[in-house]
Amino acid sequence: MADILILTTGGTIDKVYFDALSEFQVGDTMVTRLMEIGLVKQDVRVQEICRKDSLELDDADRAAIRHAIETAEESRIVITHGTDTMTNTAAVLKDIAGKTVCMFGALSPARFAESDATMNLGMALATVQVAPPGIYIAMNGTVFDAAKVRKDRAANAFVPL
Amino acid sequence: MADILILTTGGTIDKVYFDALSEFQVGDTMVTRLMEIGLVKQDVRVQEICRKDSLELDDADRAAIRHAIETAEESRIVITHGTDTMTNTAAVLKDIAGKTVCMFGALSPARFAESDATMNLGMALATVQVAPPGIYIAMNGTVFDAAKVRKDRAANAFVPL
Amino acid sequence: MADILILTTGGTIDKVYFDALSEFQVGDTMVTRLMEIGLVKQDVRVQEICRKDSLELDDADRAAIRHAIETAEESRIVITHGTDTMTNTAAVLKDIAGKTVCMFGALSPARFAESDATMNLGMALATVQVAPPGIYIAMNGTVFDAAKVRKDRAANAFVPL
Amino acid sequence: MADILILTTGGTIDKVYFDALSEFQVGDTMVTRLMEIGLVKQDVRVQEICRKDSLELDDADRAAIRHAIETAEESRIVITHGTDTMTNTAAVLKDIAGKTVCMFGALSPARFAESDATMNLGMALATVQVAPPGIYIAMNGTVFDAAKVRKDRAANAFVPL
Repeated sequence: MADILILTTGGTIDKVYFDALSEFQVGDTMVTRLMEIGLVKQDVRVQEICRKDSLELDDADRAAIRHAIETAEESRIVITHGTDTMTNTAAVLKDIAGKTVCMFGALSPARFAESDATMNLGMALATVQVAPPGIYIAMNGTVFDAAKVRKDRAANAFVPL
Repeated sequence: MADILILTTGGTIDKVYFDALSEFQVGDTMVTRLMEIGLVKQDVRVQEICRKDSLELDDADRAAIRHAIETAEESRIVITHGTDTMTNTAAVLKDIAGKTVCMFGALSPARFAESDATMNLGMALATVQVAPPGIYIAMNGTVFDAAKVRKDRAANAFVPL
Repeated sequence: MADILILTTGGTIDKVYFDALSEFQVGDTMVTRLMEIGLVKQDVRVQEICRKDSLELDDADRAAIRHAIETAEESRIVITHGTDTMTNTAAVLKDIAGKTVCMFGALSPARFAESDATMNLGMALATVQVAPPGIYIAMNGTVFDAAKVRKDRAANAFVPL
Repeated sequence: MADILILTTGGTIDKVYFDALSEFQVGDTMVTRLMEIGLVKQDVRVQEICRKDSLELDDADRAAIRHAIETAEESRIVITHGTDTMTNTAAVLKDIAGKTVCMFGALSPARFAESDATMNLGMALATVQVAPPGIYIAMNGTVFDAAKVRKDRAANAFVPL
């Protein structure tokens, strides 16, 4: 058992660019690399659930995320997730007891020179260490109760409900 | 009154390189820039206390930090600080009541392509939002009780006391 | 008249990511920013011809590029261009006399933390300063005669014809 | 025999930061890493001569650089060098025949998020491919004849003599 479990599901945070196709696709997770750069010494286990844009996540994916949390020995769970349906997935997780879960994503890919990915990962790692059990979303410098936040697409930011 | 107050004191995190002198000095704080990149929408106030290597901080500097916290309207306080004497400063702050204070620094300057500064800032911003009042140190992926951590200089990492 | 004229046409080098659409589009040119970071003190003029993936460039675009070169007062011309049809455009320019023209693009967007854009721009700026008149392509660490190179899509690299 | 030989001598370009000492020192060369990021496919050989601030280079070091060039099978030679005495070393090399030599350094360490190192390396690689034999310096976006340039310390830039 690690101290913290990170579940990865895809989303903008892990987008890579394929020149041959001139398009973006979800690639390998960047969380391990970001933790290296961030000199993280915590015992962290990373488990991939899927690699999808969050608009493509379906009920089976969300069941798999929930199952991974419920069966994990770890009680501190971080989830990387596309931003568009992050709150939908949070709703599926809301009655999980005894676990501190923090979801985050990125509005700009982690492979960009400038991305919010590292800031959000830092918030999520701290949240699962110091917050009481519950489901949280860490975006735009704020740790939200996952039931009280929405993505404002026009502003391209998470705002309180 | 802002939601969060960030006090800056110097340290490795803000080191810049002056080619003319072939040496490093403490420069302008990078926290504002890191928050921009991190798409932070919180209402944050940044106040400079000093620009020193933490080995050069004296009693007057620590009194100034304490005074800034006690007189601040904000109850959520983040402090950037050199790593060598971070715990000494924390000891001076330990009996401040009703404020959640999180200190952090960086083992590599924030102006480097690879630095732990953003990860640590993210942890600190989250900690002051979700942790109960107290003095914390966020380094190496961990949120420590500031009274129960030390810098292991040989390992170049913060470890539990 | 500047010392060097840079014509921008789009391509991967200038791709930005729009989270709202989860897609990449050609954005503002990055060459000015890259020259700032590179501490370029040359007198450089930047002129936008278009913002297109190179597969979308048509005869009118290529005529516009040629016209811009022929009517420019500058004799040192750098062109940013998508990689897929760079050699097609070079073919249209091949009999221009008295000008040193160097084309380059990027296989990874300049906004990525790791991109070949700056290396290629550096090669192009040097080439137009020291090479005799002609049409060149600077990619993958090599300055090619533009008539003797092709993009190997499988290898995602420019190789000699 | 490689196509291009890169000799490394130290200088700001390779400075690393040692937190334990709160100081900068010359570290491993960054040129190999910069060529990886720049997707360089040239056959390049990298040889370390020394790791010094250029103010500390002495006659023996300069003789070693000259010897390495004269005995190299390669005729295209790139040299990384501290900026303060780059022209002094160039003077020692000036009568070497039949080799195209381009020196460069960086005013900001290559390990910084923003550095002129990659731009200058790109210029140097191109110069040794397309310029006639001679000694060149590639800095600040310009390829200089090494005998006709000086570092203006006040401006922190290379300017024509």
